[in-house]
Amino acid sequence: MDVIEIIRAKRDGGKLTPEQIDWVIGAYTRGEVAEEQMAALAMAIFLRGMDRAEVSRWTEAMLSSGDRLDFSDLARPTTDKHSTGGVGDKITLPLTPTVAACGAAVPQLSGRGLGHTGGTLDKLESIPGWRASLSTEEMRQVITDTGGVICAAGSGLAPADRKLYALRDVTGTVESIPLIAASIMSKKLAEGTAALVLDVKVGSGAFMKDADSARELARTMVDIGNDHGVRTVALLTDMATPLGRQVGNALEVAEAVEVLSGGGPADVVELTVALAREMLIATGLTPGENGVKDPAEALRDGSALQAWKDLIRAQGGDPDAPLPEAAERRVVLAPADGVLTRLDAYQVGLAAWRLGAGRARKEDAVSFGAGVTLHAKPGEAVKTGEPLFTLHADEPERFDRAALALEGAFDIEDAAVWKAEPLLIDRVS
Amino acid sequence: MDVIEIIRAKRDGGKLTPEQIDWVIGAYTRGEVAEEQMAALAMAIFLRGMDRAEVSRWTEAMLSSGDRLDFSDLARPTTDKHSTGGVGDKITLPLTPTVAACGAAVPQLSGRGLGHTGGTLDKLESIPGWRASLSTEEMRQVITDTGGVICAAGSGLAPADRKLYALRDVTGTVESIPLIAASIMSKKLAEGTAALVLDVKVGSGAFMKDADSARELARTMVDIGNDHGVRTVALLTDMATPLGRQVGNALEVAEAVEVLSGGGPADVVELTVALAREMLIATGLTPGENGVKDPAEALRDGSALQAWKDLIRAQGGDPDAPLPEAAERRVVLAPADGVLTRLDAYQVGLAAWRLGAGRARKEDAVSFGAGVTLHAKPGEAVKTGEPLFTLHADEPERFDRAALALEGAFDIEDAAVWKAEPLLIDRVS
Repeated sequence: MDVIEIIRAKRDGGKLTPEQIDWVIGAYTRGEVAEEQMAALAMAIFLRGMDRAEVSRWTEAMLSSGDRLDFSDLARPTTDKHSTGGVGDKITLPLTPTVAACGAAVPQLSGRGLGHTGGTLDKLESIPGWRASLSTEEMRQVITDTGGVICAAGSGLAPADRKLYALRDVTGTVESIPLIAASIMSKKLAEGTAALVLDVKVGSGAFMKDADSARELARTMVDIGNDHGVRTVALLTDMATPLGRQVGNALEVAEAVEVLSGGGPADVVELTVALAREMLIATGLTPGENGVKDPAEALRDGSALQAWKDLIRAQGGDPDAPLPEAAERRVVLAPADGVLTRLDAYQVGLAAWRLGAGRARKEDAVSFGAGVTLHAKPGEAVKTGEPLFTLHADEPERFDRAALALEGAFDIEDAAVWKAEPLLIDRVS
Repeated sequence: MDVIEIIRAKRDGGKLTPEQIDWVIGAYTRGEVAEEQMAALAMAIFLRGMDRAEVSRWTEAMLSSGDRLDFSDLARPTTDKHSTGGVGDKITLPLTPTVAACGAAVPQLSGRGLGHTGGTLDKLESIPGWRASLSTEEMRQVITDTGGVICAAGSGLAPADRKLYALRDVTGTVESIPLIAASIMSKKLAEGTAALVLDVKVGSGAFMKDADSARELARTMVDIGNDHGVRTVALLTDMATPLGRQVGNALEVAEAVEVLSGGGPADVVELTVALAREMLIATGLTPGENGVKDPAEALRDGSALQAWKDLIRAQGGDPDAPLPEAAERRVVLAPADGVLTRLDAYQVGLAAWRLGAGRARKEDAVSFGAGVTLHAKPGEAVKTGEPLFTLHADEPERFDRAALALEGAFDIEDAAVWKAEPLLIDRVS
């Protein structure tokens, strides 16, 4: 096999053969194909695309580059969720114990990411004592005992993806639907789940800004999952405005606990229940039938909260300990009377990032207490001089730049102008 | 400046600004932009193109990465030729002394290339004693004394191009017209010629297989030259069949000397004269007027041959010494009676390469004596059992694979089928 021939084939709009894909991923992982050669191929794929057979094989080759976990011997069926990420997206936190409380098992392996806030692992690490790094044996024990595990993906899973993602990050080749889909799916298939529900976000705070691109990404990932024997469905959900009322690490944990206690913001509850039902259905369980609890009921009756406490304790955390708080707060007041008709997810995310909730480089630490509290959500009435946002940061000098990000982030208008948009946009199966 | 932003701009079909181009070429040359980032950018340029302003600035930035020679103080006007390369293309050898004999000066700086045969420098190195590497002072002395100099381009000329070419070679991004044009022109502009004639080859033995691509490359290079104050014209010439009757290093030197002695194959004479006239006209001299000798006359009257001997001697060579010959020969006989209606340049080139005339890797040596002698050119009659090719090689085990390359390389048909194609296809100015 000749890597230049493979690059030229894709460059000229051709299809890569299964043999070419297997060889190039393997040789790249072994260091026999140089970074600059893979960069050229990634750009050619970016601009020429890959069809279903190519992207499925590309995923398979990345999956084969490393270990694949197997939970098929668990007593419960396994099911997982992956979100393409958004501002205030703490859904994994209430979702995992909710699904566990309804009878399925959730093996949730996460990365850390470079988002506006930390990833799921950063959020959970704000809980005193909680550990993200587990051995394979610990992981198996936790999921057997509690029905869920949320932990760091080991370096043995899809090492080709790890290497390729780092390369794409510095070569302007991140936003390619086939490469994104293969990257996500190689990791999710490696974690050994039997069913998978994808939450593909659409809007300013999401990677995909429009529904058509999101639908294409969803379709590509659903096809890959089903091609590999994992029952996969995707929901397209709104990310024009943040999810919930808290954006930050510990702030989002607190909100997740509210939801698990039967309260919390309506959008977080709605999405948690919708995704939990899909996750159960994908395993063959029907919520509300044959003794399978409905997720909404699990949130109401305390069983999801109990599962949460079990899960946190099983990974060393104290679910009852006070969460870290930022040293400083600043309140931003509403400048007018009316209804909040727009609150931009991207700009709120940027503010949270400027307050210290996210990281700029992999090696940076996140601030657990930093973030933004939203006192009003779109559709709610606001009054001049009442709190609109509370900013949380460890260093007060962060407030000015964060407040600047929020300046054009919202509109306050007459109630007649307000029109609600659905949270659930589409379903792809 | 952010390299990822620059890659994304081109990837998405945008134009690069002059500042972006200057920065990215400079930073790449200094090693601040990584190879994988330049590879992604090269692929994006390959697939998205560059417009006249971009390619002109790209050339300028590569030129500015190194030294620029200046021959403006010479008593004669300077003019040079660059060929995109073809099989049997020894034209530089008779051309340089011919133009010198007509009153202009030719500063010809060459690379070595990885072609079917060696480059111009390899061919000349088959002359005992001849040296390709000259200091800047020696170069200036030789051109002042003889009206020409043919030598290796120092590493100080367009170092950005040197680095980028090596990268393109391993990343499937060679065949991009703007990148090819910028690469050639940055080196030619750096050598300080005031006028330039481009010989853009078209056909199986050339880089450009069709006239439209060749015309686009010619147009791009002519525009770059004129944008930089160098009077530039291009001829599109045929490379469907080899030039002349000799393909190899010393074999081509011998043929060049035939032409300089007033004989030689008609196509080599025709192209030498046509290019020499263009080179003179581009400097403002009119062949055949005001005491400016016409190139055809210089070939006839011995003045071009005298200039050749002066030029070879000035670089340490002995123009009268016997040339190296290959240790072994094999004759391939014509299998039929008729007219040779096709003789494929690419396949003859491949045969010469298999015989040892070219190199596979930069560090390889070429065989001076290896190559192919063509006993018939298209349009000429052949008879069964008469010699069609003579193969020359140092090792007899090379003959079988070379002969294989020639098997489908020609057609012998009825004379009525033969239709001559012009050598000079087009002129771009």
